[in-house]
Amino acid sequence: MCRWLAYYGDTIPIEALVLLPQHSLIDQSLHSREGATTTNGDGFGIGWYDELGGLPGLYKSIRPAWNDRNLRELAAHISAPLFFAHIRTSTGTAVQETNTHPFRHGRWLFMHNGLVREFPCVRRDLLLAIDSELIPELEGSTDSEVLFLLALTFGLEDAPLTALALMAGFVEEVGERHGVEHPLQMAVATTDGEQIIAVRYSSEGQSRSLYFSTGALALKAQHPNIEEVQGLSDEAHAIVSEPLGDLVEAWKCVPESSIGIVKPGPDEFYEFTPRRPQRRR
Amino acid sequence: MCRWLAYYGDTIPIEALVLLPQHSLIDQSLHSREGATTTNGDGFGIGWYDELGGLPGLYKSIRPAWNDRNLRELAAHISAPLFFAHIRTSTGTAVQETNTHPFRHGRWLFMHNGLVREFPCVRRDLLLAIDSELIPELEGSTDSEVLFLLALTFGLEDAPLTALALMAGFVEEVGERHGVEHPLQMAVATTDGEQIIAVRYSSEGQSRSLYFSTGALALKAQHPNIEEVQGLSDEAHAIVSEPLGDLVEAWKCVPESSIGIVKPGPDEFYEFTPRRPQRRR
Amino acid sequence: MCRWLAYYGDTIPIEALVLLPQHSLIDQSLHSREGATTTNGDGFGIGWYDELGGLPGLYKSIRPAWNDRNLRELAAHISAPLFFAHIRTSTGTAVQETNTHPFRHGRWLFMHNGLVREFPCVRRDLLLAIDSELIPELEGSTDSEVLFLLALTFGLEDAPLTALALMAGFVEEVGERHGVEHPLQMAVATTDGEQIIAVRYSSEGQSRSLYFSTGALALKAQHPNIEEVQGLSDEAHAIVSEPLGDLVEAWKCVPESSIGIVKPGPDEFYEFTPRRPQRRR
Amino acid sequence: MCRWLAYYGDTIPIEALVLLPQHSLIDQSLHSREGATTTNGDGFGIGWYDELGGLPGLYKSIRPAWNDRNLRELAAHISAPLFFAHIRTSTGTAVQETNTHPFRHGRWLFMHNGLVREFPCVRRDLLLAIDSELIPELEGSTDSEVLFLLALTFGLEDAPLTALALMAGFVEEVGERHGVEHPLQMAVATTDGEQIIAVRYSSEGQSRSLYFSTGALALKAQHPNIEEVQGLSDEAHAIVSEPLGDLVEAWKCVPESSIGIVKPGPDEFYEFTPRRPQRRR
Repeated sequence: MCRWLAYYGDTIPIEALVLLPQHSLIDQSLHSREGATTTNGDGFGIGWYDELGGLPGLYKSIRPAWNDRNLRELAAHISAPLFFAHIRTSTGTAVQETNTHPFRHGRWLFMHNGLVREFPCVRRDLLLAIDSELIPELEGSTDSEVLFLLALTFGLEDAPLTALALMAGFVEEVGERHGVEHPLQMAVATTDGEQIIAVRYSSEGQSRSLYFSTGALALKAQHPNIEEVQGLSDEAHAIVSEPLGDLVEAWKCVPESSIGIVKPGPDEFYEFTPRRPQRRR
Repeated sequence: MCRWLAYYGDTIPIEALVLLPQHSLIDQSLHSREGATTTNGDGFGIGWYDELGGLPGLYKSIRPAWNDRNLRELAAHISAPLFFAHIRTSTGTAVQETNTHPFRHGRWLFMHNGLVREFPCVRRDLLLAIDSELIPELEGSTDSEVLFLLALTFGLEDAPLTALALMAGFVEEVGERHGVEHPLQMAVATTDGEQIIAVRYSSEGQSRSLYFSTGALALKAQHPNIEEVQGLSDEAHAIVSEPLGDLVEAWKCVPESSIGIVKPGPDEFYEFTPRRPQRRR
Repeated sequence: MCRWLAYYGDTIPIEALVLLPQHSLIDQSLHSREGATTTNGDGFGIGWYDELGGLPGLYKSIRPAWNDRNLRELAAHISAPLFFAHIRTSTGTAVQETNTHPFRHGRWLFMHNGLVREFPCVRRDLLLAIDSELIPELEGSTDSEVLFLLALTFGLEDAPLTALALMAGFVEEVGERHGVEHPLQMAVATTDGEQIIAVRYSSEGQSRSLYFSTGALALKAQHPNIEEVQGLSDEAHAIVSEPLGDLVEAWKCVPESSIGIVKPGPDEFYEFTPRRPQRRR
Repeated sequence: MCRWLAYYGDTIPIEALVLLPQHSLIDQSLHSREGATTTNGDGFGIGWYDELGGLPGLYKSIRPAWNDRNLRELAAHISAPLFFAHIRTSTGTAVQETNTHPFRHGRWLFMHNGLVREFPCVRRDLLLAIDSELIPELEGSTDSEVLFLLALTFGLEDAPLTALALMAGFVEEVGERHGVEHPLQMAVATTDGEQIIAVRYSSEGQSRSLYFSTGALALKAQHPNIEEVQGLSDEAHAIVSEPLGDLVEAWKCVPESSIGIVKPGPDEFYEFTPRRPQRRR
């Protein structure tokens, strides 16, 4: 199971949320609290915007995050108003940087926890639907990268909510055609550097978890010793696949089949309903 | 430009041909003799058969071959009657182990020097033609891996000469459909552990070079100080993308549009003519 | 905490003990059964002898063992009558190949679980005592490598039992000079390819665990589904830092302050007593 | 032979000097212009200050610089008023991150092109002279790291010019004691984030080259297409082991046995004379 974190708000060093907190993303990767799943040691990625709306930078590594010195350096020296961080547990596909999240296309980043069920079986049909222009960007072998390229194919850059719904609908349609019972399982986040869009959805209605921080107060309460966190304004938000820190109640669990949008002003939440594309491309 | 070597004959340590000779594959990767192209430092792979007809082992690394200590250890400690070695120069695709040669399917290995021209443009059509059963084996992003999966799709395991001709014909057909002038350029080697099949071909009739050693005598003359080479019987053959050693005349340049088969008994050479598949799958 | 395995006996593929068994070394590295310590994901090494008494080969990697494909290939394709395998948990020193075990000098291999307490403080005095001829072999920054070079300095190749006792005595002497309470903690194994010598010792008398398999019967009982193990003769022995498999009773716990020797014929066990070197070099 | 670059001046993206120019450091690492030496593919490091006088960040990699995507990302996204970049060619010691430059101690960075002759022979005596407090920072196996720790031992942080002279004098003294003809060869740069100190020196009086850019005009003339370079003020300086770009005349060759200091105001140059430490520690 992968884990991820998305942050939006005041410009802070990436380490303030990714490395320093007890139960930080890195800490989680060493000791899964639930104890259920294996260590998340199959690669790590961070993506960040030097300024809101700019072009994101990426750092990816197939070392375990907990012993990657470069990650520690960069997380301490890079500050950003919006960043993504992702720790991967391979479900069998190769451990290589092109399989680590976040994925990037122009100003957009995308990361995913979950899976396309029976991906080997449905993979070709999914690849087929990817826009020709995007095929050169296909570099890895994961289902997650294909989900991103499909979302882009369905118009992510212009109408992200619709595109994500069409992507999910298409994956379900292809899955059903192949007799897959519950084709899609996902907690995804995507951003253009101005807003973060996060979806919690699964075909079976039992989705990977997704949490929003309930405002900067929550982050501050959890990380009393991290100076940068204490200085956060009310605009600061984090969206995570699992709560950071001990104060689980400081995190709002996103309900099943939801899509949330984080941007200046109040967060927005809607029901997320996959849409079948009218004509497959 | 990639470089490769295939060996068939007496069981010898891999290092005898890959590391120890002056102008060995590794040495070539540091100093291109022609001086024309860049350093081959984008990954390395070896594949070997513990015994003829067995299952091959693989070692792949994205370190430059010349400073990979594991390679030196393995090449000294692994002996084989048939092995492949390949050094990659990326033409832009990611430097990752799944992009290094040789590629493997069951008992078969495959490696390639050359390219599919305008691969980003024709890639989707090529992917589409890969047999569904083989899609899960697609792990990287190179044209070479796709050539191998296409050859398998067209029956490499049963009728290798026909399959290679169909693969080349199909790539040319797809290229032409996309207006690519010279779609295919290749010096490839493939083996099932019992015979080595090598092809020199390009759509434009100016192919990457390919050489056969003219018998064990040639190998011995070139490597007078390498004990294992001196002990070779007449069955020992090497096929290389560029001659090893100084005695260029000890290597027979394979003519344009040829396919050669190395197995017990005399080598066989035929003209290589791509065949258009009757129906595209 | 590191974990290691040493095997001596019939020639078997390395994977038969290192990868295939439930609770194999690799499996242990993902799920510590005791749950107490962190994941052993800071590097891995194997050393093997192609034949008894030959020169050992080495494969080392800083990837986590569980997702290193090269390791799987090599462990399946390399068979040996004597091999060492080690998984490292860094206690702070750099994760780099020169810090992974086993260490090698000529025909000797050495691996260690444990630590030199307050190593930063005593390191210079220990380095100073290493024989000049051996200084060029110092490549990493671990206490374990220093222990090996000290043992070599004290004559490991000629009189291994004495050398190990002198090494331990010297480390304790230096530690005491610096006011370190319990200077040395070790479960070590060393071999010249003909016999394996293993020591369990700590200054405080509470040493890292060490187990011997109680003959091939035990190995067979534990690994009923691993063909190569079922074919083992009575000469097969394994020495491990933690028992493999579920049948904990099939392993004999080596008592505190012991040194054991595994070679053809019955195993030998002696009390291990550190000896202070007469004159420090 | 290693190559390095030090920059001081206006805050610019690291890529402006390290990646984008023709004959950039990276470009040099692929194609040595002189053709004499091998490819610099044995590791790479950058060190930078987010602001003058702050704490430096480090990124190190043992991949060849030319195919390290993380380097491209970071060099594009990290801007700094002072940075170091170094490409290593191993002279035999292990290719590992702890052997790549720049080395760091607190606010100080250090990098080196050259060698301590017969280092295996003199290494122990040099290690011995390192201050006890600094021993824990010894992580690699290079002569360069030892030179840095010696310079720190001799007071680099308080009186850098004297410390560098004492370091050189001590290395020569130890070398002579061991009968080494020309013990030291070095082009080094060190900085505390406020000034850069560079030394060109060798025992034999034939030192590795060292160049200063003759002001921002020179940098601008050479890199007409790099926007960030065109915007440089007159405070911008680069010091390099080999000239960047084609305009060799835009670079001032530092004379033999010189030490230069780059800081706000005019550069200072002095003769560099090693000093024998009064008492060896």
